[in-house]
Amino acid sequence: MSICMTFSFSLHHTDGKARTGVISTPRGDIRTPAFMPVGTAATVKAMMPESVAATGADILLGNTYHLMLRPTAERIDRLGGLHKFMNWDKPILTDSGGFQVMSLSDLRKLTEEGVTFKSHIDGSKHHLTPERSMEIQKLLGSDIVMCFDECPALPADRSRINESMQLSMRWAQRSRDAFGDRPGHALFGIQQGGLEEDLRAESAEALRAIEFEGYAVGGLAVGEGQEAMFSVLDFAPDQLPVEKPRYLMGVGKPDDIVGAVKRGIDMMDCVLPSRSGRTGQAFTHRGVVNIKNARHADDPRPLDADCACPACSNYSRAYLHHVFRAQEMISGMLLTWHNLHYFQDIMQGMRDAIAIGRFAEWEKTFHAGRAAGDIAPL
Amino acid sequence: MSICMTFSFSLHHTDGKARTGVISTPRGDIRTPAFMPVGTAATVKAMMPESVAATGADILLGNTYHLMLRPTAERIDRLGGLHKFMNWDKPILTDSGGFQVMSLSDLRKLTEEGVTFKSHIDGSKHHLTPERSMEIQKLLGSDIVMCFDECPALPADRSRINESMQLSMRWAQRSRDAFGDRPGHALFGIQQGGLEEDLRAESAEALRAIEFEGYAVGGLAVGEGQEAMFSVLDFAPDQLPVEKPRYLMGVGKPDDIVGAVKRGIDMMDCVLPSRSGRTGQAFTHRGVVNIKNARHADDPRPLDADCACPACSNYSRAYLHHVFRAQEMISGMLLTWHNLHYFQDIMQGMRDAIAIGRFAEWEKTFHAGRAAGDIAPL
Ligand SMILES: [Zn+2]
Ligand SMILES: [Zn+2]
Repeated sequence: MSICMTFSFSLHHTDGKARTGVISTPRGDIRTPAFMPVGTAATVKAMMPESVAATGADILLGNTYHLMLRPTAERIDRLGGLHKFMNWDKPILTDSGGFQVMSLSDLRKLTEEGVTFKSHIDGSKHHLTPERSMEIQKLLGSDIVMCFDECPALPADRSRINESMQLSMRWAQRSRDAFGDRPGHALFGIQQGGLEEDLRAESAEALRAIEFEGYAVGGLAVGEGQEAMFSVLDFAPDQLPVEKPRYLMGVGKPDDIVGAVKRGIDMMDCVLPSRSGRTGQAFTHRGVVNIKNARHADDPRPLDADCACPACSNYSRAYLHHVFRAQEMISGMLLTWHNLHYFQDIMQGMRDAIAIGRFAEWEKTFHAGRAAGDIAPL
Repeated sequence: MSICMTFSFSLHHTDGKARTGVISTPRGDIRTPAFMPVGTAATVKAMMPESVAATGADILLGNTYHLMLRPTAERIDRLGGLHKFMNWDKPILTDSGGFQVMSLSDLRKLTEEGVTFKSHIDGSKHHLTPERSMEIQKLLGSDIVMCFDECPALPADRSRINESMQLSMRWAQRSRDAFGDRPGHALFGIQQGGLEEDLRAESAEALRAIEFEGYAVGGLAVGEGQEAMFSVLDFAPDQLPVEKPRYLMGVGKPDDIVGAVKRGIDMMDCVLPSRSGRTGQAFTHRGVVNIKNARHADDPRPLDADCACPACSNYSRAYLHHVFRAQEMISGMLLTWHNLHYFQDIMQGMRDAIAIGRFAEWEKTFHAGRAAGDIAPL
């Protein structure tokens, strides 16, 4: 692999609306469609970074909101940046902090300028603007920087969605201006507009006029349900430039991911595989398995016979059940590893299928395995 | 390495009373002096078994009391034994359950026959005898089985210590009888007698008459303090057969371990490196470091510059401090790894030093590093 000093995206194959390609960055290639594990506080919970890489992840997501509060962006910068800090030398994408300010912090005040809020950790007061978000993400050293935007919770009425979208577009311009000239680093715009096709079109148009290295479909996976989300994904990706990566933020369950890729999405992130791993929930080729269920207590079979991860290769369901019940840390470690491995398996399966024009067949097999359900108890 | 189908111990070098050698078992060699990490509930907390092996551990300890209650010895047997269950193919030593019945369970009743108690997990009633302990340890498939004994808390008066020791010696005979003929597996007797030299001698004599593949010094590290423990170790190991391994149960802090090896001990186990790792306490070449201390927040230096473990090779003190404060699982994972690695480093250092007759010099350097204390804040 040659080292590429710029950020670029090359589309290799399409199959229907599904696409596969490679995002090249100075820190390495990102094979698309790509799933990004979430490393909120400079760690993918319960995982060593080497293990995250072993699952097949080419890129991680870091949360600006959490990192700015603790240990702070300035401290991470002094320590050599987020990659060095957390021992992850592949690409990192950071969100802008906007979404999590809205969902986690107290006493928010939103103005044209930005948002003022109190930390959920210690109550300290903070101010976040497009300019400050760009500064923080630069201090972190993130490879893919997200515009600072506002994302209203759904359902919301059309005028609220429109006002919010217009504000986010003004903030997108301010983000672009503040980002500056940073070769090898990318700034992604975020399309808003809720479930409204015309607002989404207007938002896409505004972003295209500003020009970004990639475009996110924002404002989804906020409670609207899969059907509504897919109905937006039936048109939203097409409104964005075909030659740039398209990122669906905060998605999702395996079938959400497959449906999004089918509709032209190239990148996704979600806490689901790691969060579920810590609560005993495994995603498998045959659907969801709750390892805490007593039916697994004596079961010598692997969690997922079609999975090559350490949890499935080296342990029985009985062991995974035991360590979950005993509240041992290895329970979260193994199930998180499995879930992340399974998510990356899905991505690899889709990339391979798209490359040979067999996405529809792959999708059918994917759904059939899930429909078959978990193996029968012994 | 040739595969040895029997259990044997060969002493390679002595330096003063300190000894180095190899215990050979069908599951692999155990280099002595050996430190055994504790895998209470079929996992060394916060560690993958491959990582435990990577620290240099040749053998693990499993707790009969915990495993008999959950997931039960019969279940582990049905699943192919403890090694397969927990994915650890090297030797395993199991304790007899006696000590932890006394320290953890409720409503104990002790008779000549054995002990009846209620589970600390669900209140269920259980009975443990020398015969049942042997049966459980066989079901688990442990390589080194410990006699079922009674260990009185110190301080206790001489008559109580004596009565208890006499009972333990009768139980040692019953353990030997119940253990049967199991080539490749070892049964260790446990010397009791508190701090009393004559009672320890009587106990050793009783055990030697029964004959065991190894001998433990029991009833120490139960609150008597290092000075009292060392005063017993000044005579107790010499009371045991020179040609068999000598195991000091439940020890200890790094300086306890070094002092025990100096006095002729070959094997030890302790939860300290793993338990401390989960509470932010690291053992280093320069003494104890509390990673939660604010002085580490901006410190780019490794936890222990003389340690080659992943925590010290890939992370700063600032990172370790951050993830401890943020209560991230990787904090316990990295600090446990470091502590276990450091304990194994000590063992390797002692083995090497004894082999070349330089234990005293090694010990001096060990104490000098600790006396120097942690590096100065930046
Ligand atoms: Zn798996
Ligand atoms: Zn270390």
